[in-house]
Order: sequence, then structure tokens, then C-alpha cells
Amino acid sequence: MIKMIMHGCNGAMGQVITGLAAEEKNITIVAGIDPQDRKNDSYPVFSSLEECDVPADVIVDFASAKAVDGLLDYSRDHKIPVVVCTTGLSEEQIKKIEETSNHVAVLRSANMSLGVNLLMKLVKEAAEVLAVAGFDIEILEKHHNKKLDAPSGTALALADSINEAMDQEYHYVYDRSQVRKARDRKEIGIQAVRGGTIVGEHDVIFAGKDEVVTFNHTAYSKAIFAQGAVSAAKFLAGKGPGLYTMKDVIES
Amino acid sequence: MIKMIMHGCNGAMGQVITGLAAEEKNITIVAGIDPQDRKNDSYPVFSSLEECDVPADVIVDFASAKAVDGLLDYSRDHKIPVVVCTTGLSEEQIKKIEETSNHVAVLRSANMSLGVNLLMKLVKEAAEVLAVAGFDIEILEKHHNKKLDAPSGTALALADSINEAMDQEYHYVYDRSQVRKARDRKEIGIQAVRGGTIVGEHDVIFAGKDEVVTFNHTAYSKAIFAQGAVSAAKFLAGKGPGLYTMKDVIES
Amino acid sequence: MIKMIMHGCNGAMGQVITGLAAEEKNITIVAGIDPQDRKNDSYPVFSSLEECDVPADVIVDFASAKAVDGLLDYSRDHKIPVVVCTTGLSEEQIKKIEETSNHVAVLRSANMSLGVNLLMKLVKEAAEVLAVAGFDIEILEKHHNKKLDAPSGTALALADSINEAMDQEYHYVYDRSQVRKARDRKEIGIQAVRGGTIVGEHDVIFAGKDEVVTFNHTAYSKAIFAQGAVSAAKFLAGKGPGLYTMKDVIES
Amino acid sequence: MIKMIMHGCNGAMGQVITGLAAEEKNITIVAGIDPQDRKNDSYPVFSSLEECDVPADVIVDFASAKAVDGLLDYSRDHKIPVVVCTTGLSEEQIKKIEETSNHVAVLRSANMSLGVNLLMKLVKEAAEVLAVAGFDIEILEKHHNKKLDAPSGTALALADSINEAMDQEYHYVYDRSQVRKARDRKEIGIQAVRGGTIVGEHDVIFAGKDEVVTFNHTAYSKAIFAQGAVSAAKFLAGKGPGLYTMKDVIES
Repeated sequence: MIKMIMHGCNGAMGQVITGLAAEEKNITIVAGIDPQDRKNDSYPVFSSLEECDVPADVIVDFASAKAVDGLLDYSRDHKIPVVVCTTGLSEEQIKKIEETSNHVAVLRSANMSLGVNLLMKLVKEAAEVLAVAGFDIEILEKHHNKKLDAPSGTALALADSINEAMDQEYHYVYDRSQVRKARDRKEIGIQAVRGGTIVGEHDVIFAGKDEVVTFNHTAYSKAIFAQGAVSAAKFLAGKGPGLYTMKDVIES
Repeated sequence: MIKMIMHGCNGAMGQVITGLAAEEKNITIVAGIDPQDRKNDSYPVFSSLEECDVPADVIVDFASAKAVDGLLDYSRDHKIPVVVCTTGLSEEQIKKIEETSNHVAVLRSANMSLGVNLLMKLVKEAAEVLAVAGFDIEILEKHHNKKLDAPSGTALALADSINEAMDQEYHYVYDRSQVRKARDRKEIGIQAVRGGTIVGEHDVIFAGKDEVVTFNHTAYSKAIFAQGAVSAAKFLAGKGPGLYTMKDVIES
Repeated sequence: MIKMIMHGCNGAMGQVITGLAAEEKNITIVAGIDPQDRKNDSYPVFSSLEECDVPADVIVDFASAKAVDGLLDYSRDHKIPVVVCTTGLSEEQIKKIEETSNHVAVLRSANMSLGVNLLMKLVKEAAEVLAVAGFDIEILEKHHNKKLDAPSGTALALADSINEAMDQEYHYVYDRSQVRKARDRKEIGIQAVRGGTIVGEHDVIFAGKDEVVTFNHTAYSKAIFAQGAVSAAKFLAGKGPGLYTMKDVIES
Repeated sequence: MIKMIMHGCNGAMGQVITGLAAEEKNITIVAGIDPQDRKNDSYPVFSSLEECDVPADVIVDFASAKAVDGLLDYSRDHKIPVVVCTTGLSEEQIKKIEETSNHVAVLRSANMSLGVNLLMKLVKEAAEVLAVAGFDIEILEKHHNKKLDAPSGTALALADSINEAMDQEYHYVYDRSQVRKARDRKEIGIQAVRGGTIVGEHDVIFAGKDEVVTFNHTAYSKAIFAQGAVSAAKFLAGKGPGLYTMKDVIES
């Protein structure tokens, strides 16, 4: 049984992970860390990592960026692998993650969803076969009407993943209404739909002569990032020093 | 049994309509008109309308723009209703169609597909219910990689149909990558995907709070315009003078 | 401003409706009814309707079947229109609803979602055009892996709605693996996909010669029933005696 | 430049391949074989392989089952690799293919489409990651209303491909309307939609907790088998003796 510390256990994601871990057979939360007080019957909660003396195999972090430095120090000092899910880290913190990974296993990914990370890998394989055979590549994403940026970071990451496999030969096109010309073979069109409360949907489309292959990922709630974090924790427990990503979890 | 003259019977669309009509119970082609000679066992072919003296109930036209003037004269003189499917008409010809419709039934539509024309009507009804209830409206179209214009004329016609029902309050948005802001409630996003040999696909998306209603039309070949023409012919035979569209066919 | 009583205000659906109503301009909750105590700052909560003396224009009910009799009596005695969303009613209760509707406006529907009810109406219109033109009709639904029944009640209601428009000429087919024969024109295939936590998705497919028209409804949470209830309340306030359904809300 | 012999050059598929090959840079048809006479300016046509003395690097076969024996003999005697696309072979012929592959490269696949064969491989990889993480697997296929069998051979091949990766632990379910029970984790639901002239569409759905990954393949015409044949020919030219499939083409 893998013993896990939940860093940020009383936040929204921490609570979802607590629920998920309770259903898992091979992993159990032995301690939670959160400055915010909340009654919890299933494991002891400490207001900071320094106060926690419970032995553990892995830490999962969904707290706040400002708590990441202390987290990395604790992970390194106690030799406990850590899954860092908090976003909005500074460049110094990203460097510190790399340094820490020389001493203990650290996993960090732009998107913790198992499905999206799997797609990231499979569309690369698909591109290697289909793009060479003349298929055009297009990406379509749909999000809620409050999202400020377009296209989504995940859509760009999917495009980058494909472009990496294609020797960076492709350029991205976001608008076709201003020109009157046929599509260039080396372009990846990326379109953004916005409406209602759509959580997040991504289509990677390979369109060839009389056939189309589409990879679709649809998220129904942010709980999918929790599931990815638990899978990452199970993977990371027992691993030696190194910097890992969700790609390693999927390929394991 | 409705007796039909096929104007442009040896062109690609004329041939598809010939095949379709052969399977129909209530309509039969009694004569074809085409300057291009081709063996045909099922009906006599004349090189021009002037030479044709076969009595008929309706004419279907899928010939060329330059033959439309003679067609309208013939239709008017012989009092035979006419379905004009040829595109690329001049403004003079469009005026002539209107004048002709004072004397005989004339039907003309931007898109002859039954499915697209039905959608044009239903998305208007949907908008009247859903837009008022706060749903956002988005349109997505997919076409082959040789298409020069974007978005497609049909996507714009669908947006116009909705906007007409909404008192022209909506504006259209084709690119969201250049600004960082939340969606405006009164916008209709219109996105264009291009790839392979996709014949034509249109999605009209109504996205609300936790629910999405999508209307999709997928074309597999240009034969759908032939089917629409035959339905229009059956509708128009026996009608009095007037200017009709596919909307009338659908609502009949 | 429409004054609404929320019957069952502390249940899951009551809470969602409370949140929705707070965002609406034309409607406000003036009182809540719930035997379960819970702090609420936005409106007074009474443990039963009998104790409530707040004047109101409409009652929305998402409580329990056993509270429906008292609800109907209150609605009738105080002449306040009522939207009954509680399910699992007995035949006696359904009769009582009909009787009550002779004295006050009552609205009740099998499915409160605006989107599904709109689709119910539009697929009927589509069938009248497309089925006659030879299109085949198929229904596909997707739900979570814990759902016991298949196909879903909503899928059957969509099929029934179409069949009603088609003079009951169609029969339903749920399995095609046991016979080796071509599809009958007068059948509606209804297929059920089960997996994960899918909330509910329905496709009504009209497949013709080289074109397919698909109507899709996707639910992301049960909150959509709350939205439908608020729309129904706004419609029902001020209406005279009668039995209404969501269809009336949509057509208004 | 790869020199190719087109066996069955005047059949529908032979003609499509001729068109495709003309657009390819690295491959050219140097001779065609067909008992049926037809004018052809781009390469000499022989009525049988015996009469053909044009040196070649690969043969592509889309003729008839009865011509396969002579084809295999010719391929073996002249040491020219052969892509066998003809279907409906007898068990003796399949054995003969295996024997022939000891002497020369032979490629044969149940489905020649590049897209379907790629999917066959990728859904296996997806299952290894997602099924282990608790995702349910469902397959959905859509075909025209004249198709006699259900589910399609390709749907079954996709299911078999997944099941092979899952140690054959899964069973297939085609109908859920007859029982009232929750889905079993070890089942793959396979649903068949029939309507209109749909050429062929397959969805492989992985549904997990709040996320769904879908792989879709849509065919717009049978020309996709031609494209697969040309890719196979380019792969096979120059290969040593052995039995190959489209999987080898994709992985190359």
C-alpha cells in the first residue's frame, strides 16, 4: 500500500483527490497539509509540512505557488517523491524543481489529465503516419464563454506535440476569413469555439483523401486532473531521482 | 405522374438527377436538353429548348448561366414552372427571374440540399427559444483543402437566418486569437476547418449552462443537390405564378 | 418582478435553482420551504407550506413525492401557479394534478431540460420533411455505467415524438447483431452506449442519400433541470387555470 | 522511382489507383493487367500476367479471387513483391499466400484503409493506458441501410485488437434493452447504426470519470482502400521474403 501525503488537502482539488484515493486499493492518504482548518476523519491534517512527521512514499501537491519552495525542500530532505500539480510557478521555481529532481523523483506536467496526455502521445504517432501520407492536420477546441485566451494552452500543446514529430515544419493558422486562398499543406489550423459552460473539448483532425481520423477529448469536470494526480502518485512512489512528466506515467 | 424536362441533362448534375428520377414513382423525365451529344435510352434529348415540343409540367435547370435567359423565356411562353439550380447568375438575370415569376412559378435557392434548407429553418426556431434563455451561438464548418473562401456561404446563410430571427442584434466573429477577453453574448463565432476532401459539414452549436444543443449537417457528395432539385420539381408542378424557395418546399 | 416560492429549497436541486434565480432579473425567490434546516441569508425558509404566508406569483417544486399532495392543495387554495418537477408520482397524484389544473395553472414535464424539450419539438418537424424524403431515422444515447435501464426514457420519448408525427408507422429496433438483413424503412434503431460518468447525450440521426442531419443534446450536469424549472416559473406566473408542459414554455 | 504493375487495372479500384499513382512522385505504373479491354494512354495493358514482360518492383492486386493463384505463381517466379487486396479468398488461397511469402514479400490485410489500420494500432495503446485506469470501452459504427451484417467486420476487428492487448478478458455486448442492470467493467459494447448511404464510420470510445476519449474514423468513399494499396506498394518494393500487413506499413 502506497502512503501518500496530500499537500493542499482542503482545497477543491485536494478534496476531490481525497475522495478518489478512498476508492483506490493500492494507495492511501496518511496525512494532509493545509493552513485552512476543516474537520477530516480519514487522515490527520497538519497546518504545514514542517509539523508533519508521518512516514510517506509520495506527496501530491495541489496547493498554491507560494508553498512550492517549502514543499520542494521537504521532499528533498525527506527523500519523498513529489507530484507538483500547482500551476503559475515562477521561472525560479521551475529551476528549483529541476535542481530538486537531482536528489529525489519530481513529476510536473502542464495538464494532469490522463486522457489529454495520452492524446498528446498518440497524435504524434498518428502524424508520423498520416501527415506523410498527405493528410491535413486541424485542431478544434471548445471552452466556456468566460475563457479569456484562445486558443487554449492544451490546443497549442497538442499542436506543438505534432510539430515536434514533424521537424517543426508546420505553422499555425487561427483565422481563414481574411484571405481567399487554398490551404497550405504545412499549416495546422487551430479554431476556438466559446459558449456556455463547456469545460473543455479538443479535436485533433487528420483529413485525407476521402477519409478523416479524429481524436476527441471531452472533459466533464476538473476532477479529471485529480485522477491524473493519483495515477502519477502511484507511478512515482519508489522511483529514484529524476524529472518526470505525465508522459512517463502513460508509457509505464 | 409529373412530366419533367431536364435542362442540362448531360452534365454531371443532370446525370445524377436522371438516375434519381428513374427511382421516383411520381415524376418522370420526358425530355432532356443539352448541346452536348450523348446516347440516352430513357428519354429524347434536344440540343436546345427551342427544338423541344414535348408537353411537360416542370423544368429543372442545372445547365450554365448563359442558358438561363432562354430558359426563362421558354418557361414563361409555355407556362411551365421552372426550378433554377444554376449558380453564378448576373444581377440582370436575377431581376429577370423575378419578372418571370409574375407569369409562371419559379423556384431558386442558394443551396438546393434538403437537409441544409431544413436546418436553416430549425436553427431559427431554436434561436428563438435558446438565445432568449442565454445560450451562446457558434457555427463551425468543415470543407476540403482546395476551398478558397472562408467561412462557407452556407455557414453565413445559417448565421443570417439566426440573426434575422434575433432582430439583427448579433455580430459575427471569425478569429479569437488576437484578443484576450471573454465572449460577448451577442456574437456568433464562425470557425472554418479545412482539410482533405471533406465535401461539407456544418455545425450550429447552442451552448448554455451545462447543456449544449448541436445541429449537424454532413454532405457525402454533391448528389444531395440533385435530390433537392427533384423535391423542388415535385413541389412546383401545378403551382401558379410566384417566386418560391426551398423553404416553401420544406414547409409544404 | 416575479415572486417565487422554492419548495424543497435545501435539496440539491433547490440549491441550484436558488443560485440561478439570484442571477435572473425578472424573478426572485421570496420564500423557501424545507423541513431540513439550513442557514440562508437571501430568503426566509419555512419548514412547511402551511407556515408560509409570503405572497407569491409561482411555486417551483423539487421536493419529494410525498409532499406533492399538500403542495397541490396549497397551490389551489392560494391560487398560486405551480411547477411540479418532482418525479416518481403515483397515478393518484397525477390525477390530482389534472384536477388541480382546473383551478390553477400547473406545469409538469417528464424532462425539465430546455434543450431536450426543444429537440422533442424540432425532430418532429424534421421527420415530417426528411422521413417523407426517404431519410432513415436512428437514435443514439450515451449514459454513465451505473444506469440500469436501456434505452433511456428520453431516447424513447424522442422516438415517440417522431412516431406521433409519422402516424405511428414506425417500430423500434434495439439490436441488429442477431439477424442478417437490410434495414427496414419503417424502423427507428435505438442504440445505447454506457460508460464512465457520462451525464446524458442524445443523437437523433436522419440519414439520407449522401447527406446526414444530426440533432445532438449533451448534458454536462443535472443543473439543466434547474434552468428549465426557472424558465417554466417565469412562463407560468400570471397564467390562468390549465395543465401545461415544457412544450408550452418553448412555444411561448 | 518504383515500378508497379496494376493487376486488375480496368476495374473500379484499379482505375482509382491509376489516378492516385499518377499524382505520386516515387511510384509509377509500368503495366496493367486486365482481361477487359479499355483504352489507356499512360501504360501498356496486357490481358494476362503471362503476357506481361515489363520489369517491375511491385504488383498491386485488386482483381478477382479466381485470378489470385496465377498472381501468386507469377510473383514467386519473377521475385516481384505483391500486395493482395482482393477479398473473398478461399482457405487454400490463404495457405498459398503464406507459402508464397517464404519466397517473396507478400502483403495482405482485411482492411486496406490507412486510417482504420492506424486506429487499430492506436486504440490498443490507448486501452493499455485507459482500461487499466478504469475507463469503459465502447464501439459504435454507422453504415448504409443496405448493409446486411451487424456489427461491421471493422468494428469487430477494432474490438479484437483491444481485447488482444487486454489478455482477452473482455466480452462483447450488442444489446442492452433486454436486461436491467449496470454495465460490467469487462464488456465492450458494440452498437450499429444503419441509415441512408453512410459509407462507414467507426467510433472507439473510452469513457472514464468525467472525461471521454474518442477515436473516430469516417470514410467518404471506397477510394481510401486505393490510397492504402499505393502506400503498401511503396513499402513493399525492395523488401525480402515475408508475410506483411498494413500494420507493418504504418510502423515503418
